[in-house]
Amino acid sequence: MHGRNHTAQVLRFGQEFFLLDCGEGTQHQLQRFKIKTSKISSIFISHLHGDHYLGLIGLLSSFHLSKRTQPLTLFGPKGLDDILTIHFRWSHTQLCYPLTFVLTQDQEKRILLDQPGYSLSSFPLSHRIPTTGFLFQEKAGPRSLIKEKVMENALSVEALQHLRRGEDYQESSGKWCRVKEFTHPLPKLRSYAFCSDTAFDERLIPYLQGVDLLYHEATFMDAEAKRAVDTYHSTAKQAATLALRAEVGTLLLGHFSSRYAELSNLLAEAQSVFSNSLLSEEGKTYALPLHHE
Amino acid sequence: MHGRNHTAQVLRFGQEFFLLDCGEGTQHQLQRFKIKTSKISSIFISHLHGDHYLGLIGLLSSFHLSKRTQPLTLFGPKGLDDILTIHFRWSHTQLCYPLTFVLTQDQEKRILLDQPGYSLSSFPLSHRIPTTGFLFQEKAGPRSLIKEKVMENALSVEALQHLRRGEDYQESSGKWCRVKEFTHPLPKLRSYAFCSDTAFDERLIPYLQGVDLLYHEATFMDAEAKRAVDTYHSTAKQAATLALRAEVGTLLLGHFSSRYAELSNLLAEAQSVFSNSLLSEEGKTYALPLHHE
Repeated sequence: MHGRNHTAQVLRFGQEFFLLDCGEGTQHQLQRFKIKTSKISSIFISHLHGDHYLGLIGLLSSFHLSKRTQPLTLFGPKGLDDILTIHFRWSHTQLCYPLTFVLTQDQEKRILLDQPGYSLSSFPLSHRIPTTGFLFQEKAGPRSLIKEKVMENALSVEALQHLRRGEDYQESSGKWCRVKEFTHPLPKLRSYAFCSDTAFDERLIPYLQGVDLLYHEATFMDAEAKRAVDTYHSTAKQAATLALRAEVGTLLLGHFSSRYAELSNLLAEAQSVFSNSLLSEEGKTYALPLHHE
Repeated sequence: MHGRNHTAQVLRFGQEFFLLDCGEGTQHQLQRFKIKTSKISSIFISHLHGDHYLGLIGLLSSFHLSKRTQPLTLFGPKGLDDILTIHFRWSHTQLCYPLTFVLTQDQEKRILLDQPGYSLSSFPLSHRIPTTGFLFQEKAGPRSLIKEKVMENALSVEALQHLRRGEDYQESSGKWCRVKEFTHPLPKLRSYAFCSDTAFDERLIPYLQGVDLLYHEATFMDAEAKRAVDTYHSTAKQAATLALRAEVGTLLLGHFSSRYAELSNLLAEAQSVFSNSLLSEEGKTYALPLHHE
Protein backbone atom coordinates (compact mmCIF):
# COMPACT_ATOMS: atom_id res chain seq x y z
CA MET A 1 0.00 0.00 0.00
CA HIS A 2 1.17 3.50 -0.77
CA GLY A 3 3.92 1.83 -2.76
CA ARG A 4 5.41 0.33 0.39
CA ASN A 5 6.69 -3.20 0.23
CA HIS A 6 6.66 -6.00 2.76
CA THR A 7 9.51 -6.49 5.20
CA ALA A 8 12.99 -7.39 3.96
CA GLN A 9 16.37 -5.98 4.92
CA VAL A 10 19.88 -6.67 3.77
CA LEU A 11 22.42 -6.46 6.57
CA ARG A 12 25.92 -6.11 5.20
CA PHE A 13 29.09 -6.68 7.20
CA GLY A 14 32.27 -6.54 5.13
CA GLN A 15 31.71 -8.95 2.25
CA GLU A 16 28.90 -10.81 4.03
CA PHE A 17 25.27 -10.13 3.14
CA PHE A 18 22.48 -11.33 5.41
CA LEU A 19 18.83 -11.10 4.45
CA LEU A 20 16.46 -10.38 7.33
CA ASP A 21 12.88 -11.42 6.48
CA CYS A 22 11.74 -11.86 2.91
CA GLY A 23 8.22 -10.58 2.24
CA GLU A 24 6.50 -11.02 -1.09
CA GLY A 25 8.28 -9.13 -3.85
CA THR A 26 11.71 -9.18 -2.17
CA GLN A 27 13.51 -10.63 -5.19
CA HIS A 28 12.11 -7.81 -7.28
CA GLN A 29 13.32 -5.23 -4.78
CA LEU A 30 16.76 -6.83 -4.56
CA GLN A 31 17.05 -6.48 -8.33
CA ARG A 32 15.74 -2.96 -8.24
CA PHE A 33 18.32 -1.88 -5.70
CA LYS A 34 21.07 -3.86 -7.44
CA ILE A 35 21.96 -6.13 -4.52
CA LYS A 36 24.22 -8.95 -5.65
CA THR A 37 22.05 -11.82 -4.39
CA SER A 38 24.84 -14.34 -4.89
CA LYS A 39 26.55 -12.65 -1.92
CA ILE A 40 23.68 -13.44 0.43
CA SER A 41 25.05 -16.25 2.57
CA SER A 42 22.27 -16.51 5.14
CA ILE A 43 18.58 -15.67 5.36
CA PHE A 44 16.79 -15.09 8.66
CA ILE A 45 12.99 -15.34 8.87
CA SER A 46 11.40 -13.86 11.99
CA HIS A 47 7.99 -15.55 11.74
CA LEU A 48 5.49 -17.14 9.40
CA HIS A 49 3.14 -14.26 8.65
CA GLY A 50 2.97 -13.78 4.91
CA ASP A 51 4.36 -10.25 4.85
CA HIS A 52 7.63 -11.53 6.33
CA TYR A 53 8.37 -14.69 4.34
CA LEU A 54 6.21 -15.06 1.21
CA GLY A 55 9.02 -13.89 -1.04
CA LEU A 56 11.33 -16.64 0.18
CA ILE A 57 10.15 -19.47 -2.06
CA GLY A 58 10.45 -17.29 -5.14
CA LEU A 59 13.91 -16.10 -4.12
CA LEU A 60 15.18 -19.63 -3.44
CA SER A 61 13.69 -20.75 -6.78
CA SER A 62 15.39 -17.89 -8.59
CA PHE A 63 18.72 -18.81 -7.01
CA HIS A 64 18.13 -22.27 -8.44
CA LEU A 65 17.17 -21.01 -11.91
CA SER A 66 20.23 -18.77 -12.00
CA LYS A 67 22.37 -21.83 -11.17
CA ARG A 68 23.65 -20.62 -7.81
CA THR A 69 26.37 -22.82 -6.40
CA GLN A 70 27.20 -21.07 -3.12
CA PRO A 71 25.72 -22.72 -0.03
CA LEU A 72 22.90 -20.91 1.72
CA THR A 73 21.83 -21.16 5.34
CA LEU A 74 18.26 -20.41 6.26
CA PHE A 75 17.31 -19.63 9.85
CA GLY A 76 13.63 -19.66 10.73
CA PRO A 77 10.83 -20.98 12.89
CA LYS A 78 9.30 -24.41 13.01
CA GLY A 79 7.07 -24.93 10.00
CA LEU A 80 9.23 -23.12 7.49
CA ASP A 81 10.98 -26.35 6.52
CA ASP A 82 7.63 -28.05 5.89
CA ILE A 83 6.45 -25.13 3.79
CA LEU A 84 9.56 -25.20 1.60
CA THR A 85 9.43 -28.96 1.25
CA ILE A 86 5.86 -28.93 -0.01
CA HIS A 87 6.50 -26.14 -2.50
CA PHE A 88 9.55 -27.79 -3.96
CA ARG A 89 7.84 -31.17 -4.02
CA TRP A 90 4.93 -29.90 -6.14
CA SER A 91 7.10 -27.84 -8.47
CA HIS A 92 9.45 -30.85 -8.85
CA THR A 93 12.39 -28.70 -7.82
CA GLN A 94 15.66 -30.19 -6.63
CA LEU A 95 17.74 -27.18 -5.64
CA CYS A 96 21.11 -27.04 -7.37
CA TYR A 97 22.86 -25.41 -4.38
CA PRO A 98 23.26 -26.62 -0.79
CA LEU A 99 20.52 -25.21 1.46
CA THR A 100 20.81 -25.76 5.20
CA PHE A 101 17.84 -25.05 7.40
CA VAL A 102 18.45 -24.09 11.03
CA LEU A 103 15.49 -23.92 13.38
CA THR A 104 15.17 -20.82 15.54
CA GLN A 105 13.25 -20.98 18.79
CA ASP A 106 11.27 -18.25 20.45
CA GLN A 107 11.79 -18.93 24.16
CA GLU A 108 15.22 -17.44 24.79
CA LYS A 109 18.18 -15.79 23.15
CA ARG A 110 20.24 -18.10 20.99
CA ILE A 111 23.46 -17.53 19.09
CA LEU A 112 22.86 -18.59 15.47
CA LEU A 113 26.19 -17.62 13.94
CA ASP A 114 29.40 -17.20 15.90
CA GLN A 115 32.19 -16.02 13.64
CA PRO A 116 35.56 -14.36 14.30
CA GLY A 117 34.27 -10.88 13.47
CA TYR A 118 30.69 -11.02 14.65
CA SER A 119 27.87 -13.01 16.18
CA LEU A 120 24.24 -13.15 15.11
CA SER A 121 21.57 -14.19 17.61
CA SER A 122 17.83 -14.60 17.74
CA PHE A 123 15.70 -13.52 20.68
CA PRO A 124 11.97 -13.87 21.41
CA LEU A 125 9.47 -11.20 20.40
CA SER A 126 5.85 -10.97 21.55
CA HIS A 127 3.59 -11.66 18.63
CA ARG A 128 0.52 -13.76 17.81
CA ILE A 129 2.63 -16.64 16.55
CA PRO A 130 6.19 -17.69 17.44
CA THR A 131 8.44 -14.81 16.39
CA THR A 132 12.06 -13.90 16.94
CA GLY A 133 14.07 -10.75 16.54
CA PHE A 134 17.69 -10.84 15.37
CA LEU A 135 20.73 -9.22 16.95
CA PHE A 136 23.97 -8.59 15.13
CA GLN A 137 27.01 -7.89 17.33
CA GLU A 138 30.44 -7.06 16.03
CA LYS A 139 33.32 -8.71 17.88
CA ALA A 140 36.74 -7.29 18.59
CA GLY A 141 39.23 -8.41 15.99
CA PRO A 142 43.02 -8.39 16.45
CA ARG A 143 44.38 -4.96 17.37
CA SER A 144 46.38 -3.25 14.69
CA LEU A 145 50.00 -2.48 15.51
CA ILE A 146 51.57 0.96 15.30
CA LYS A 147 54.21 -0.01 12.74
CA GLU A 148 56.80 2.68 13.39
CA LYS A 149 56.81 2.01 17.14
CA VAL A 150 57.17 -1.73 16.58
CA MET A 151 60.09 -1.24 14.14
CA GLU A 152 61.79 1.28 16.41
CA ASN A 153 61.72 -1.11 19.38
CA ALA A 154 62.41 -4.34 17.40
CA LEU A 155 59.77 -6.35 19.29
CA SER A 156 59.79 -10.16 19.21
CA VAL A 157 57.20 -12.21 17.27
CA GLU A 158 55.75 -13.39 20.62
CA ALA A 159 55.33 -9.81 21.76
CA LEU A 160 53.46 -8.93 18.56
CA GLN A 161 51.11 -11.89 18.95
CA HIS A 162 50.21 -10.87 22.50
CA LEU A 163 49.80 -7.22 21.59
CA ARG A 164 47.45 -8.09 18.71
CA ARG A 165 45.30 -10.04 21.14
CA GLY A 166 45.24 -7.00 23.44
CA GLU A 167 47.63 -8.44 26.06
CA ASP A 168 50.67 -6.66 27.51
CA TYR A 169 53.82 -8.77 27.18
CA GLN A 170 57.15 -8.94 28.99
CA GLU A 171 60.13 -9.64 26.74
CA SER A 172 62.88 -11.99 28.02
CA SER A 173 64.96 -8.85 28.50
CA GLY A 174 62.44 -7.86 31.18
CA LYS A 175 61.13 -5.00 29.11
CA TRP A 176 57.30 -4.61 29.13
CA CYS A 177 55.50 -4.08 25.81
CA ARG A 178 52.26 -2.27 26.56
CA VAL A 179 49.15 -2.59 24.37
CA LYS A 180 48.45 1.12 24.81
CA GLU A 181 51.88 2.06 23.51
CA PHE A 182 52.17 -0.30 20.53
CA THR A 183 48.62 -0.68 19.11
CA HIS A 184 45.98 1.61 17.71
CA PRO A 185 42.81 2.09 19.78
CA LEU A 186 40.05 -0.42 18.92
CA PRO A 187 37.13 0.90 16.98
CA LYS A 188 33.84 0.85 18.91
CA LEU A 189 32.08 -2.45 18.27
CA ARG A 190 28.88 -2.01 16.34
CA SER A 191 25.52 -3.70 16.85
CA TYR A 192 22.14 -3.84 15.15
CA ALA A 193 18.84 -5.27 16.38
CA PHE A 194 15.84 -6.15 14.23
CA CYS A 195 12.37 -6.39 15.81
CA SER A 196 10.03 -7.32 12.97
CA ASP A 197 6.59 -7.70 14.54
CA THR A 198 6.00 -7.37 18.26
CA ALA A 199 3.77 -5.98 20.95
CA PHE A 200 5.43 -3.49 23.30
CA ASP A 201 7.38 -5.69 25.68
CA GLU A 202 9.86 -4.50 28.31
CA ARG A 203 11.42 -7.93 28.41
CA LEU A 204 13.12 -6.99 25.14
CA ILE A 205 15.25 -4.34 26.85
CA PRO A 206 18.10 -6.65 27.91
CA TYR A 207 18.51 -7.89 24.32
CA LEU A 208 18.50 -4.38 22.90
CA GLN A 209 20.59 -2.65 25.56
CA GLY A 210 22.91 -0.10 23.98
CA VAL A 211 22.68 -1.28 20.38
CA ASP A 212 23.82 1.31 17.87
CA LEU A 213 20.84 0.90 15.60
CA LEU A 214 17.48 -0.59 16.52
CA TYR A 215 14.89 -1.40 13.87
CA HIS A 216 11.55 -1.72 15.62
CA GLU A 217 8.14 -2.05 14.07
CA ALA A 218 5.81 0.90 14.55
CA THR A 219 2.61 -0.30 12.94
CA PHE A 220 0.31 2.23 14.56
CA MET A 221 0.05 5.76 15.86
CA ASP A 222 -0.92 6.45 19.43
CA ALA A 223 -4.63 6.80 18.62
CA GLU A 224 -4.62 3.11 17.70
CA ALA A 225 -2.87 1.95 20.89
CA LYS A 226 -5.76 -0.38 21.72
CA ARG A 227 -5.55 -1.96 18.28
CA ALA A 228 -1.80 -2.37 18.73
CA VAL A 229 -2.44 -4.43 21.87
CA ASP A 230 -5.12 -6.52 20.17
CA THR A 231 -2.95 -7.34 17.17
CA TYR A 232 0.37 -7.76 19.03
CA HIS A 233 1.89 -4.79 17.26
CA SER A 234 3.50 -1.58 18.58
CA THR A 235 2.84 2.11 18.28
CA ALA A 236 5.58 4.51 17.25
CA LYS A 237 5.63 5.86 20.81
CA GLN A 238 6.06 2.39 22.24
CA ALA A 239 8.97 1.68 19.90
CA ALA A 240 10.51 4.98 20.99
CA THR A 241 9.95 4.18 24.67
CA LEU A 242 11.80 0.92 24.24
CA ALA A 243 14.63 2.69 22.37
CA LEU A 244 14.90 5.23 25.19
CA ARG A 245 14.95 2.67 27.95
CA ALA A 246 17.38 0.38 26.16
CA GLU A 247 19.62 3.41 25.51
CA VAL A 248 20.08 2.62 21.84
CA GLY A 249 21.88 4.95 19.45
CA THR A 250 19.30 5.36 16.69
CA LEU A 251 15.78 4.03 16.26
CA LEU A 252 14.60 3.02 12.81
CA LEU A 253 10.81 2.75 12.55
CA GLY A 254 9.07 0.46 10.07
CA HIS A 255 6.15 -1.86 9.26
CA PHE A 256 3.69 1.02 9.02
CA SER A 257 0.00 0.23 8.73
CA SER A 258 -1.43 0.80 5.27
CA ARG A 259 -3.95 3.17 6.86
CA TYR A 260 -1.19 5.82 6.95
CA ALA A 261 -0.44 7.30 3.54
CA GLU A 262 1.78 9.92 5.11
CA LEU A 263 4.15 9.18 7.96
CA SER A 264 5.43 12.48 9.32
CA ASN A 265 2.97 12.49 12.24
CA LEU A 266 3.92 8.97 13.15
CA LEU A 267 7.58 9.99 13.15
CA ALA A 268 6.76 13.04 15.29
CA GLU A 269 5.09 10.82 17.88
CA ALA A 270 8.24 8.69 18.12
CA GLN A 271 10.54 11.70 18.25
CA SER A 272 8.50 13.21 21.09
CA VAL A 273 9.80 10.28 23.18
CA PHE A 274 13.14 9.50 21.52
CA SER A 275 14.53 12.23 19.35
CA ASN A 276 16.97 10.06 17.41
CA SER A 277 14.17 8.26 15.55
CA LEU A 278 14.01 7.79 11.78
CA LEU A 279 11.52 6.37 9.30
CA SER A 280 12.92 3.46 7.35
CA GLU A 281 12.77 4.16 3.64
CA GLU A 282 12.85 1.58 0.90
CA GLY A 283 16.15 1.15 -0.86
CA LYS A 284 17.98 3.37 1.59
CA THR A 285 21.23 2.32 3.25
CA TYR A 286 21.69 3.02 6.95
CA ALA A 287 25.41 2.88 7.64
CA LEU A 288 27.10 2.32 10.98
CA PRO A 289 30.51 3.90 10.44
CA LEU A 290 33.53 2.82 12.46
CA HIS A 291 34.30 5.06 15.43
CA HIS A 292 37.50 4.82 17.41
CA GLU A 293 37.23 5.20 21.14
CA MET B 1 13.63 -8.75 -14.81
CA HIS B 2 13.56 -5.67 -16.99
CA GLY B 3 10.69 -4.54 -14.76
CA ARG B 4 8.52 -7.40 -15.97
CA ASN B 5 6.36 -9.17 -13.44
CA HIS B 6 5.33 -12.80 -13.13
CA THR B 7 2.17 -14.09 -14.78
CA ALA B 8 -1.24 -12.82 -13.68
CA GLN B 9 -4.19 -11.68 -15.77
CA VAL B 10 -7.59 -10.33 -14.90
CA LEU B 11 -10.31 -11.51 -17.26
CA ARG B 12 -13.39 -9.35 -16.98
CA PHE B 13 -16.82 -10.28 -18.29
CA GLY B 14 -19.55 -7.82 -17.38
CA GLN B 15 -19.32 -7.44 -13.61
CA GLU B 16 -17.36 -10.68 -13.13
CA PHE B 17 -13.60 -10.63 -12.63
CA PHE B 18 -11.54 -13.79 -12.96
CA LEU B 19 -7.88 -13.95 -12.05
CA LEU B 20 -5.76 -16.22 -14.25
CA ASP B 21 -2.53 -17.22 -12.49
CA CYS B 22 -1.11 -15.25 -9.62
CA GLY B 23 2.67 -14.90 -9.66
CA GLU B 24 4.60 -13.24 -6.86
CA GLY B 25 3.73 -9.56 -6.56
CA THR B 26 0.25 -9.87 -8.08
CA GLN B 27 -1.49 -8.13 -5.17
CA HIS B 28 0.86 -5.21 -5.62
CA GLN B 29 0.10 -5.04 -9.34
CA LEU B 30 -3.65 -5.28 -8.74
CA GLN B 31 -3.38 -2.26 -6.45
CA ARG B 32 -1.18 -0.44 -8.90
CA PHE B 33 -3.66 -0.87 -11.73
CA LYS B 34 -6.61 -0.14 -9.44
CA ILE B 35 -8.42 -3.44 -9.87
CA LYS B 36 -11.21 -3.82 -7.32
CA THR B 37 -10.08 -7.14 -5.87
CA SER B 38 -13.38 -7.64 -4.05
CA LYS B 39 -14.91 -8.24 -7.49
CA ILE B 40 -12.65 -11.21 -8.18
CA SER B 41 -14.97 -14.17 -7.78
CA SER B 42 -12.71 -16.94 -9.01
CA ILE B 43 -8.99 -17.57 -9.34
CA PHE B 44 -7.53 -20.06 -11.80
CA ILE B 45 -4.00 -21.42 -11.32
CA SER B 46 -2.45 -23.15 -14.32
CA HIS B 47 0.37 -24.98 -12.52
CA LEU B 48 2.62 -25.00 -9.49
CA HIS B 49 5.73 -23.25 -10.78
CA GLY B 50 6.46 -20.30 -8.56
CA ASP B 51 6.11 -17.62 -11.22
CA HIS B 52 2.46 -18.62 -11.69
CA TYR B 53 1.16 -18.99 -8.14
CA LEU B 54 3.50 -17.57 -5.49
CA GLY B 55 1.39 -14.43 -5.12
CA LEU B 56 -1.70 -16.43 -4.25
CA ILE B 57 -1.09 -16.94 -0.55
CA GLY B 58 -0.41 -13.25 -0.04
CA LEU B 59 -3.50 -12.27 -2.00
CA LEU B 60 -5.75 -14.67 -0.08
CA SER B 61 -4.23 -13.37 3.18
CA SER B 62 -4.86 -9.79 2.15
CA PHE B 63 -8.49 -10.60 1.34
CA HIS B 64 -8.68 -11.94 4.89
CA LEU B 65 -7.01 -8.90 6.46
CA SER B 66 -9.31 -6.58 4.54
CA LYS B 67 -12.28 -8.55 5.92
CA ARG B 68 -13.57 -9.84 2.62
CA THR B 69 -16.96 -11.53 2.93
CA GLN B 70 -17.65 -12.56 -0.69
CA PRO B 71 -17.06 -16.23 -1.43
CA LEU B 72 -14.09 -17.12 -3.59
CA THR B 73 -13.58 -20.17 -5.76
CA LEU B 74 -10.08 -21.33 -6.49
CA PHE B 75 -9.39 -23.69 -9.40
CA GLY B 76 -6.00 -25.32 -9.54
CA PRO B 77 -3.95 -28.49 -9.74
CA LYS B 78 -3.43 -31.19 -7.15
CA GLY B 79 -1.08 -29.95 -4.45
CA LEU B 80 -2.35 -26.39 -4.31
CA ASP B 81 -4.77 -27.27 -1.53
CA ASP B 82 -1.96 -28.83 0.52
CA ILE B 83 0.21 -25.77 -0.02
CA LEU B 84 -2.51 -23.39 1.16
CA THR B 85 -3.36 -25.56 4.12
CA ILE B 86 0.19 -25.62 5.39
CA HIS B 87 0.64 -21.85 5.01
CA PHE B 88 -2.56 -21.04 6.84
CA ARG B 89 -1.83 -23.60 9.51
CA TRP B 90 1.54 -22.06 10.39
CA SER B 91 0.29 -18.48 10.24
CA HIS B 92 -2.71 -19.47 12.41
CA THR B 93 -5.07 -18.06 9.78
CA GLN B 94 -8.73 -18.99 9.68
CA LEU B 95 -10.01 -17.21 6.56
CA CYS B 96 -12.99 -14.95 7.24
CA TYR B 97 -14.56 -15.58 3.81
CA PRO B 98 -15.68 -18.83 2.18
CA LEU B 99 -12.98 -20.31 -0.03
CA THR B 100 -13.85 -23.27 -2.22
CA PHE B 101 -11.08 -25.23 -3.89
CA VAL B 102 -11.85 -27.06 -7.12
CA LEU B 103 -9.25 -29.44 -8.49
CA THR B 104 -8.37 -29.12 -12.16
CA GLN B 105 -6.98 -32.08 -14.05
CA ASP B 106 -4.58 -32.10 -16.92
CA GLN B 107 -5.71 -35.07 -19.01
CA GLU B 108 -8.66 -33.63 -20.92
CA LYS B 109 -10.83 -30.56 -21.34
CA ARG B 110 -13.16 -29.92 -18.42
CA ILE B 111 -15.84 -27.29 -17.92
CA LEU B 112 -15.10 -25.54 -14.63
CA LEU B 113 -17.83 -22.88 -14.67
CA ASP B 114 -21.03 -23.16 -16.69
CA GLN B 115 -23.09 -20.00 -16.31
CA PRO B 116 -25.95 -18.50 -18.35
CA GLY B 117 -23.67 -16.02 -20.12
CA TYR B 118 -20.42 -17.99 -20.43
CA SER B 119 -18.48 -21.10 -19.71
CA LEU B 120 -14.92 -21.44 -18.47
CA SER B 121 -12.96 -24.63 -19.10
CA SER B 122 -9.53 -26.01 -18.46
CA PHE B 123 -7.54 -28.02 -20.99
CA PRO B 124 -4.19 -29.79 -20.80
CA LEU B 125 -0.93 -28.05 -21.74
CA SER B 126 2.46 -29.73 -22.27
CA HIS B 127 4.78 -28.66 -19.51
CA ARG B 128 7.25 -30.22 -17.08
CA ILE B 129 4.61 -30.60 -14.38
CA PRO B 130 0.79 -30.95 -14.66
CA THR B 131 -0.42 -27.73 -16.28
CA THR B 132 -3.71 -26.56 -17.73
CA GLY B 133 -4.74 -23.71 -19.96
CA PHE B 134 -8.08 -21.95 -19.54
CA LEU B 135 -10.72 -21.22 -22.15
CA PHE B 136 -13.44 -18.62 -21.73
CA GLN B 137 -16.42 -18.91 -24.09
CA GLU B 138 -19.30 -16.50 -24.20
CA LYS B 139 -22.74 -18.05 -24.60
CA ALA B 140 -25.70 -16.67 -26.48
CA GLY B 141 -27.98 -14.74 -24.15
CA PRO B 142 -31.64 -13.89 -24.84
CA ARG B 143 -32.10 -11.95 -28.10
CA SER B 144 -33.07 -8.34 -27.70
CA LEU B 145 -36.43 -7.31 -29.19
CA ILE B 146 -36.93 -4.50 -31.71
CA LYS B 147 -39.23 -2.46 -29.51
CA GLU B 148 -41.02 -0.44 -32.16
CA LYS B 149 -41.86 -3.54 -34.18
CA VAL B 150 -43.18 -5.36 -31.10
CA MET B 151 -45.39 -2.39 -30.12
CA GLU B 152 -46.63 -1.93 -33.64
CA ASN B 153 -47.76 -5.55 -33.89
CA ALA B 154 -49.00 -5.94 -30.27
CA LEU B 155 -47.37 -9.36 -29.82
CA SER B 156 -48.43 -11.68 -27.00
CA VAL B 157 -46.25 -12.36 -23.95
CA GLU B 158 -45.76 -15.93 -25.17
CA ALA B 159 -44.56 -14.68 -28.54
CA LEU B 160 -42.00 -12.44 -26.84
CA GLN B 161 -40.67 -15.28 -24.70
CA HIS B 162 -40.13 -17.47 -27.77
CA LEU B 163 -38.56 -14.69 -29.78
CA ARG B 164 -36.09 -13.90 -26.99
CA ARG B 165 -35.00 -17.53 -27.00
CA GLY B 166 -34.54 -17.29 -30.76
CA GLU B 167 -37.62 -19.33 -31.66
CA ASP B 168 -40.23 -18.32 -34.25
CA TYR B 169 -43.76 -18.40 -32.79
CA GLN B 170 -47.23 -18.77 -34.23
CA GLU B 171 -49.88 -16.62 -32.48
CA SER B 172 -53.34 -18.16 -31.87
CA SER B 173 -54.50 -15.90 -34.68
CA GLY B 174 -52.30 -18.03 -36.95
CA LYS B 175 -49.89 -15.17 -37.57
CA TRP B 176 -46.18 -16.12 -37.51
CA CYS B 177 -43.79 -13.98 -35.47
CA ARG B 178 -40.32 -14.40 -36.98
CA VAL B 179 -37.12 -13.99 -34.96
CA LYS B 180 -35.48 -12.25 -37.91
CA GLU B 181 -38.23 -9.66 -38.04
CA PHE B 182 -38.71 -8.88 -34.35
CA THR B 183 -35.22 -9.21 -32.79
CA HIS B 184 -31.84 -7.62 -33.26
CA PRO B 185 -29.07 -9.79 -34.71
CA LEU B 186 -27.04 -11.58 -32.03
CA PRO B 187 -23.59 -10.22 -31.33
CA LYS B 188 -20.77 -12.59 -32.23
CA LEU B 189 -19.90 -14.73 -29.23
CA ARG B 190 -16.48 -13.96 -27.86
CA SER B 191 -13.79 -16.31 -26.61
CA TYR B 192 -10.39 -16.13 -24.97
CA ALA B 193 -7.78 -18.81 -24.39
CA PHE B 194 -4.89 -18.66 -21.94
CA CYS B 195 -1.84 -20.89 -22.43
CA SER B 196 0.50 -20.08 -19.55
CA ASP B 197 3.50 -22.39 -19.95
CA THR B 198 3.68 -25.02 -22.65
CA ALA B 199 5.85 -26.67 -25.22
CA PHE B 200 4.66 -26.35 -28.82
CA ASP B 201 1.91 -28.93 -29.08
CA GLU B 202 -0.45 -29.40 -32.02
CA ARG B 203 -2.88 -31.21 -29.78
CA LEU B 204 -3.87 -27.79 -28.44
CA ILE B 205 -5.39 -26.75 -31.78
CA PRO B 206 -8.88 -28.21 -31.16
CA TYR B 207 -9.16 -26.28 -27.85
CA LEU B 208 -8.02 -23.03 -29.43
CA GLN B 209 -9.87 -23.30 -32.74
CA GLY B 210 -11.20 -19.90 -33.78
CA VAL B 211 -10.85 -18.10 -30.43
CA ASP B 212 -10.94 -14.33 -30.73
CA LEU B 213 -7.92 -13.80 -28.54
CA LEU B 214 -5.23 -16.31 -27.70
CA TYR B 215 -2.64 -15.64 -25.01
CA HIS B 216 0.24 -18.00 -25.60
CA GLU B 217 3.58 -18.03 -23.89
CA ALA B 218 6.56 -17.12 -26.06
CA THR B 219 9.48 -17.61 -23.73
CA PHE B 220 12.17 -17.80 -26.38
CA MET B 221 13.21 -16.56 -29.79
CA ASP B 222 13.89 -18.98 -32.60
CA ALA B 223 17.61 -19.18 -31.87
CA GLU B 224 16.73 -20.85 -28.57
CA ALA B 225 14.35 -23.41 -30.12
CA LYS B 226 16.37 -26.27 -28.67
CA ARG B 227 16.17 -24.75 -25.20
CA ALA B 228 12.41 -24.31 -25.65
CA VAL B 229 12.08 -28.05 -26.22
CA ASP B 230 14.29 -28.89 -23.25
CA THR B 231 12.36 -26.65 -20.87
CA TYR B 232 8.85 -27.37 -22.23
CA HIS B 233 8.41 -23.78 -23.33
CA SER B 234 7.61 -22.25 -26.74
CA THR B 235 9.27 -19.86 -29.12
CA ALA B 236 7.41 -16.84 -30.49
CA LYS B 237 7.29 -18.53 -33.90
CA GLN B 238 5.77 -21.66 -32.43
CA ALA B 239 3.09 -19.64 -30.66
CA ALA B 240 2.36 -17.90 -33.95
CA THR B 241 2.22 -21.21 -35.81
CA LEU B 242 -0.37 -22.47 -33.38
CA ALA B 243 -2.35 -19.22 -33.72
CA LEU B 244 -2.28 -19.55 -37.50
CA ARG B 245 -3.35 -23.17 -37.55
CA ALA B 246 -6.06 -22.67 -34.95
CA GLU B 247 -7.31 -19.67 -36.95
CA VAL B 248 -7.50 -17.38 -33.93
CA GLY B 249 -8.30 -13.69 -34.20
CA THR B 250 -5.38 -12.15 -32.33
CA LEU B 251 -2.32 -13.64 -30.66
CA LEU B 252 -1.04 -12.13 -27.45
CA LEU B 253 2.53 -13.15 -26.63
CA GLY B 254 3.88 -13.29 -23.08
CA HIS B 255 6.17 -15.00 -20.52
CA PHE B 256 9.30 -13.66 -22.15
CA SER B 257 12.65 -14.96 -20.94
CA SER B 258 14.57 -12.48 -18.83
CA ARG B 259 17.44 -12.80 -21.33
CA TYR B 260 15.52 -10.42 -23.62
CA ALA B 261 15.59 -6.83 -22.46
CA GLU B 262 14.01 -5.68 -25.67
CA LEU B 263 11.19 -7.58 -27.37
CA SER B 264 10.69 -6.11 -30.82
CA ASN B 265 12.69 -8.87 -32.54
CA LEU B 266 10.72 -11.52 -30.72
CA LEU B 267 7.50 -9.87 -31.89
CA ALA B 268 8.83 -9.68 -35.44
CA GLU B 269 9.50 -13.43 -35.42
CA ALA B 270 5.90 -14.09 -34.42
CA GLN B 271 4.51 -11.64 -36.95
CA SER B 272 6.50 -13.28 -39.75
CA VAL B 273 4.22 -16.30 -39.19
CA PHE B 274 1.02 -14.70 -37.89
CA SER B 275 0.71 -10.99 -38.54
CA ASN B 276 -1.95 -10.32 -35.93
CA SER B 277 0.45 -10.88 -33.04
CA LEU B 278 0.93 -8.51 -30.11
CA LEU B 279 3.24 -8.32 -27.11
CA SER B 280 1.35 -8.39 -23.82
CA GLU B 281 2.13 -5.28 -21.82
CA GLU B 282 1.72 -4.93 -18.07
CA GLY B 283 -1.35 -3.05 -16.95
CA LYS B 284 -2.79 -2.89 -20.43
CA THR B 285 -6.39 -3.87 -21.19
CA TYR B 286 -7.08 -5.97 -24.28
CA ALA B 287 -10.76 -5.52 -25.08
CA LEU B 288 -12.93 -7.79 -27.17
CA PRO B 289 -15.68 -5.45 -28.34
CA LEU B 290 -19.10 -6.77 -29.28
CA HIS B 291 -19.60 -7.28 -33.00
CA HIS B 292 -22.97 -7.94 -34.51
CA GLU B 293 -23.17 -10.47 -37.31
